[in-house]
Amino acid sequence: MEKGSLLYEGKAKRIYATDQEDVVLISYKDSATAFNGEKKAELAGKGRLNNEISSRIFLKLKEHNIPSHFIEQLSEHEQLVKHVTIIPLEVVTRNVAAGSLAKRLGLEEGQVFDQPIVEFYFKDDQLGDPLLTEDHIQLLNIASKEEVAEIKKQALAINEALRSLFAEMEIDLIDFKVEFGKDKKGIILLADEISPDTCRLWEKNTNRKLDKDVFRRDLGNLVEAYEEVFNRLGGKQHV
Amino acid sequence: MEKGSLLYEGKAKRIYATDQEDVVLISYKDSATAFNGEKKAELAGKGRLNNEISSRIFLKLKEHNIPSHFIEQLSEHEQLVKHVTIIPLEVVTRNVAAGSLAKRLGLEEGQVFDQPIVEFYFKDDQLGDPLLTEDHIQLLNIASKEEVAEIKKQALAINEALRSLFAEMEIDLIDFKVEFGKDKKGIILLADEISPDTCRLWEKNTNRKLDKDVFRRDLGNLVEAYEEVFNRLGGKQHV
Repeated sequence: MEKGSLLYEGKAKRIYATDQEDVVLISYKDSATAFNGEKKAELAGKGRLNNEISSRIFLKLKEHNIPSHFIEQLSEHEQLVKHVTIIPLEVVTRNVAAGSLAKRLGLEEGQVFDQPIVEFYFKDDQLGDPLLTEDHIQLLNIASKEEVAEIKKQALAINEALRSLFAEMEIDLIDFKVEFGKDKKGIILLADEISPDTCRLWEKNTNRKLDKDVFRRDLGNLVEAYEEVFNRLGGKQHV
Repeated sequence: MEKGSLLYEGKAKRIYATDQEDVVLISYKDSATAFNGEKKAELAGKGRLNNEISSRIFLKLKEHNIPSHFIEQLSEHEQLVKHVTIIPLEVVTRNVAAGSLAKRLGLEEGQVFDQPIVEFYFKDDQLGDPLLTEDHIQLLNIASKEEVAEIKKQALAINEALRSLFAEMEIDLIDFKVEFGKDKKGIILLADEISPDTCRLWEKNTNRKLDKDVFRRDLGNLVEAYEEVFNRLGGKQHV
């Protein structure tokens, strides 16, 4: 597999072409950003850990019959994925009130919901990723009603699988953000990454934060927290 | 009908008890406020005009088979309405991009939608009336799924009736905000007011603003604009 030209550079990843039309290579960067890029840092080890963690999680989701764009991990920082066209929605599933939602709706952080909720944000840095209703999604021609229903169904299934996966690791899944893409047949597929950058992970009983809130809120050493998640996922021996 | 004790004072209205348990009296104030109360003024004539306009609109909606809490206009500033328990949602229906929506989603002001959209905002000044998805409404126990569907249906029917009413007056209905209440039988009923305080009204062809944006954006004399709407609705002679 040849690493080709740079197709896209995001805040935490670079995407490269490969010699196969349907396959792209993701390279994880050590950059940490928060608050729509206002807070930034370079943290050695973060890119490797997110690649290792995300690769393992995509493999475990496959065991739960949840397909994704993931093909295989190539190296410490790199993975191969199916080429998909990203749907410009940040799909957030929440089990417990935290972060921006708690603040916006006046909920107490830590309030457990009777049922998970799914939210859609418009993936647009210039607009600050605004919250969208289903009417807005149709208005902006981002996805059809049927596609929104399919995305919501997949998000809830991913939530169930991730909750049980993290529960085995003595971690509560508070919320997480995923993105979906369409392959050339138009099939909607889980894409992007699943890592402590995109999940809120609280250690059971202690509520110790094992996710990007460590960086957002200056709660300690982010790389150590991510290393902890990686170890609980099996660490190196499970490669 | 006896005017009883003050039950509630909002930014633009006072609600009084009456000698009938199921009936309250609304008195319209001359206060104008915008941006969640940050901009304020007292404008002589505004309360009277909103009461006259809202009373006429509720009567006209009744002719379109759209019920509301409205019973009758009592005086220049006062109307009698059925007592309902307000559902804490600001229900916004939009036909054309304008105001906060255009800004949030990066749409051009004036873009006409293929279909009207309905949005829900949490009626909570302290939180700044945040936008809610249907999942949030259930999470906050504001209304059931069935009630949300009923409210949406009513909002769209009100939109159709108001559009045709304003079209006869050479005015385009851009968007409007309504509130709903429940009567003691639990029936959901259009409540609050419908006036240039709660609608965006643009004169056909010229796009001259005939609504609260005149105040929000310092576009001229608000009372004159409201008087214009009142005159087109038939003015004094139709009382």
